[in-house]
Amino acid sequence: MPDYKAPLRDMRFLLDEVFDFPASYAAIGADDATPDMVGAILEEGAKFCEQVLAPLNRSGDEEECQFDNGVVTTPRGFKEAFAQYVEGGWMGLAADPAYGGQGLPHSLGLLISEMIGASNTSWGMYPGLTHGAMSAIHAHGSEEQKQIYLTRMTEGRWTGTMCLTEAHCGTDLGIIKTRAVPQADGSYAISGSKIFISAGEHDMSENIVHLVLAKLPDAPAGTRGISLFIVPKFLPGADGSVGDRNAVSCGSIEHKMGIKASATCVINFDSATGYLIGEANKGLNCMFTMMNHARLGTGMQGLCLGEASYQGAVKYAGERLQMRALTGPKAPDKPADPIIVHPDVRRMLLTMKAFNEGNRALAYFTAQLIDQAHAAASAEQRAEAEDLLALLTPICKAFMTETGLEATNLGMQVFGGHGFIREWGMEQLVRDCRIAPIYEGTNGIQALDLLGRKVLGSQGKLLRGFTRIVHKFCEAQAEHPQLKAQVAQLAGLNKQWGELTQKIGLAAMKNPDEVGAASMDYLMYAGYVILAYFWLRMALVAQDKLAAGSDEAAFYQAKLATCDFYFKRLLPRTAAHLAAAEAGSDCLMSLPAEHFAL
Amino acid sequence: MPDYKAPLRDMRFLLDEVFDFPASYAAIGADDATPDMVGAILEEGAKFCEQVLAPLNRSGDEEECQFDNGVVTTPRGFKEAFAQYVEGGWMGLAADPAYGGQGLPHSLGLLISEMIGASNTSWGMYPGLTHGAMSAIHAHGSEEQKQIYLTRMTEGRWTGTMCLTEAHCGTDLGIIKTRAVPQADGSYAISGSKIFISAGEHDMSENIVHLVLAKLPDAPAGTRGISLFIVPKFLPGADGSVGDRNAVSCGSIEHKMGIKASATCVINFDSATGYLIGEANKGLNCMFTMMNHARLGTGMQGLCLGEASYQGAVKYAGERLQMRALTGPKAPDKPADPIIVHPDVRRMLLTMKAFNEGNRALAYFTAQLIDQAHAAASAEQRAEAEDLLALLTPICKAFMTETGLEATNLGMQVFGGHGFIREWGMEQLVRDCRIAPIYEGTNGIQALDLLGRKVLGSQGKLLRGFTRIVHKFCEAQAEHPQLKAQVAQLAGLNKQWGELTQKIGLAAMKNPDEVGAASMDYLMYAGYVILAYFWLRMALVAQDKLAAGSDEAAFYQAKLATCDFYFKRLLPRTAAHLAAAEAGSDCLMSLPAEHFAL
Repeated sequence: MPDYKAPLRDMRFLLDEVFDFPASYAAIGADDATPDMVGAILEEGAKFCEQVLAPLNRSGDEEECQFDNGVVTTPRGFKEAFAQYVEGGWMGLAADPAYGGQGLPHSLGLLISEMIGASNTSWGMYPGLTHGAMSAIHAHGSEEQKQIYLTRMTEGRWTGTMCLTEAHCGTDLGIIKTRAVPQADGSYAISGSKIFISAGEHDMSENIVHLVLAKLPDAPAGTRGISLFIVPKFLPGADGSVGDRNAVSCGSIEHKMGIKASATCVINFDSATGYLIGEANKGLNCMFTMMNHARLGTGMQGLCLGEASYQGAVKYAGERLQMRALTGPKAPDKPADPIIVHPDVRRMLLTMKAFNEGNRALAYFTAQLIDQAHAAASAEQRAEAEDLLALLTPICKAFMTETGLEATNLGMQVFGGHGFIREWGMEQLVRDCRIAPIYEGTNGIQALDLLGRKVLGSQGKLLRGFTRIVHKFCEAQAEHPQLKAQVAQLAGLNKQWGELTQKIGLAAMKNPDEVGAASMDYLMYAGYVILAYFWLRMALVAQDKLAAGSDEAAFYQAKLATCDFYFKRLLPRTAAHLAAAEAGSDCLMSLPAEHFAL
Repeated sequence: MPDYKAPLRDMRFLLDEVFDFPASYAAIGADDATPDMVGAILEEGAKFCEQVLAPLNRSGDEEECQFDNGVVTTPRGFKEAFAQYVEGGWMGLAADPAYGGQGLPHSLGLLISEMIGASNTSWGMYPGLTHGAMSAIHAHGSEEQKQIYLTRMTEGRWTGTMCLTEAHCGTDLGIIKTRAVPQADGSYAISGSKIFISAGEHDMSENIVHLVLAKLPDAPAGTRGISLFIVPKFLPGADGSVGDRNAVSCGSIEHKMGIKASATCVINFDSATGYLIGEANKGLNCMFTMMNHARLGTGMQGLCLGEASYQGAVKYAGERLQMRALTGPKAPDKPADPIIVHPDVRRMLLTMKAFNEGNRALAYFTAQLIDQAHAAASAEQRAEAEDLLALLTPICKAFMTETGLEATNLGMQVFGGHGFIREWGMEQLVRDCRIAPIYEGTNGIQALDLLGRKVLGSQGKLLRGFTRIVHKFCEAQAEHPQLKAQVAQLAGLNKQWGELTQKIGLAAMKNPDEVGAASMDYLMYAGYVILAYFWLRMALVAQDKLAAGSDEAAFYQAKLATCDFYFKRLLPRTAAHLAAAEAGSDCLMSLPAEHFAL
């Protein structure tokens, strides 16, 4: 397994130099999140991830979770690492102080989760799902529910899950079969079977709090008839301690391609006691409020695994000796040159680097929006942040996982045959990454959400909220002595993005299939343009620092070189996505379904 | 695991209708390969693959090969399937009758290997490596060596391997350390350790014939000092039976991401007895003569796994009910529509279909060239076929595996969460496919071979041999009533291909890194253009058949729809590859190696 070193310098570059987090933390009243405090937290988090989680990553993959008669055992060391995590207070880092949390900004929680995901994605699923459940309870639970559940989850004594999918429906939650029957005491009897429940059963916590989508007996059909319930594994005792076992059981765990140390459970509810959370029949809305956060988290898995893979690939490329550089030996004292001398190896490494650092910028910008959506001073600022979040979230989820998967595959390719061997750990990163384009809403669903619901659904308003930012940036930098050519390139693409949107919008008025036909390529096009914007923002800072005579010239020059690479070699992919997005639905819909097999 | 059905109709379409194999078989004097005989062989092969190999594919992946103290046990049923294969005479199908083979055309052997690879890639490695070793012995062995080894390999009693890679060198064979010391009896004592030896040890055959690259004591440094040796596991007895055990042993097997039922061995030679094959110090040349064949075979693994994945995905997309079509319910009697109604699902399926069928056309065209290179009537025809083969082989290997990997990933994506679960078999196809861009020369090496050695190395001659064919085709079809727009598109890209080549060639004269900088995108560009050519050849036949009132209209219409999709949605990727290939080496080479980790 490649060693993981948290990219603290790059994180600080974005936080302090590109996005001015100190100012935005001050603006949301996060007085505790001083630069020193943030630095100290990141360093502590890095230590935990590098020293505790990373060493368990490959062994976790080899051992997998074990299932025996309803009991799930996580791999060696996982439970102890979780105890350390809880002990360190990490679970409550960004949680509400009213329920025991430290109340630090959400973005800081995401930075920690980046390091966790890069060092051990499987392990990160356990606290990750708990955070998701916590945010749903925080947003929609009653005060009593918060006191009972949220406080214990914040402490890390209880963990959480989200139980949505059933065997016959994943995307289409309108057709779930799990039923909730009202009981005399105000609780509900929940019956049904849920699948793909991450962290659904394990040995890390004393209780597991399932958030379950189910239908009331009189519920309307479809998604407007779904309610959300809290169904704990153990019922809370009168004093809030762990009481009787509820009729919730783990039927089996899945054997998967990757994230093998994350328990993916079938959870059976057999007239289990559940408690309605939020309003009846509004369960899907409750889920949606937490989805921005969860989808950004999933997008970050692409970044995490791309980063881990890059670190391994760069190290290997500097050590592996194979062939001579075409321009003559670079290490004449050795039997061959390190493969990093070869242009095609550099193409792979720079592709990874450009995606990782670009995606990190996108993720942090989005994380900053999450802070603002929660806590900006004015309602207007909060709404503006919400709008940008709504637009960027599906792009984060899908673009970052598509490109993250590409990055992990490239990292493996750099290793040649050794990349295919488990021992080296590079193929695990590909397998672990492969789920990210699928779960938390497939990337196809993200694309529909982006183009159909967000962009066209708002008559372009959400899109303009972002393209205006890019437009202003390009106007301001149009004469930048070093960057003006790239600024012009971005400005052109930004304009084209609007034109493409209009074109699809017009076509979609006649034929709704035009949205689905264009959506995935539209999303990828958008992602490449957005990354170009963030690469220029980073390049701008780097130019300024170099002009000011920084003593970290190499760091800033590497940023400029990677930006140059991105514009020359990756951004042209927009042309292919544009053509495909403009191609219309006929070439997809003309073949009758039964003729696909011919 | 998705059921596998050999795509016999599509195979016959290419053989009989597009490429006129009956005529080319007649032209090379393959009188036995009548259409009836070919049809019968393909049907028998299909039966074996569908009924014997496919059912062992998933169990083989789960069981993997087992290693115990030098002994390798293949998964349950593998040995018996191999016995059936041998019994059926498949090993000698395309082998020389002088050594017991049936002497059928090489292309026919490739068609059988396509079905084998699609039903069970791991299993296919055992006969595949044997065929590779057979062709090397056939081309370079002495008459005595052929009598001893080739006859038994043709029978299937003995199997073969190719032992090239060592722990410190894969691509760079010039630095191998395995040594061959001449012995008084004319044999050599071989000492060294080879890794990644597919089929290096197993329980299927009574003897294993290793072809080993090693250096003589006085060998010149680098690749011009490598010799090839036959090193059998058991020395042949005087009567040709299995004699004494040679000092060859399997040290361990690798634990891999995929093709887990293919034994990937460390093979140790401890003063083992070996026999020089071919001339001393010319071992790499001996290996190269068989590489065209092996590289096409590896390229076909991309096609095989893409096809298997497509079959699974189409079936699932027709059965899985999820959401309603945006244009209104298509299966109103069911709780939801089958997902094949959704444009984005169709995008994924058609991408797979377009790659699979396009790659199959490329593969069969190339297989036909192999026949001609071996057996065309005139030396001129043979040389012409060799030239085209030299150009197309690296493209087959790399383009077909890149796009095959994309196809298997899409097939998995169609399954949503279920795609990630081992039980469904879709993720295995991704894992099994992932090695194909790596082994038999990484795709990066193929790209260098194509651009550096083949295209620029021949001053463009090899390229013009192919672009001329495309040019003539486009001229002839320029006024085709239905296809002229696509013909014009292809003609433009074909011309642009030449211009791109010239541009890189000029730049490379000043700076050899320009070749490596452009090579991978150049190869992908070439692949897309070549597939466009083959798609039009298929579309042309389809148009003709429809015009003639074929009673298989649906089959031909599906071809036209897929061609249309390819031109509109996949071919535009050439724009991105063109821009990247033209971007030059500066953006790859400017970053100092030690700054990649910043």
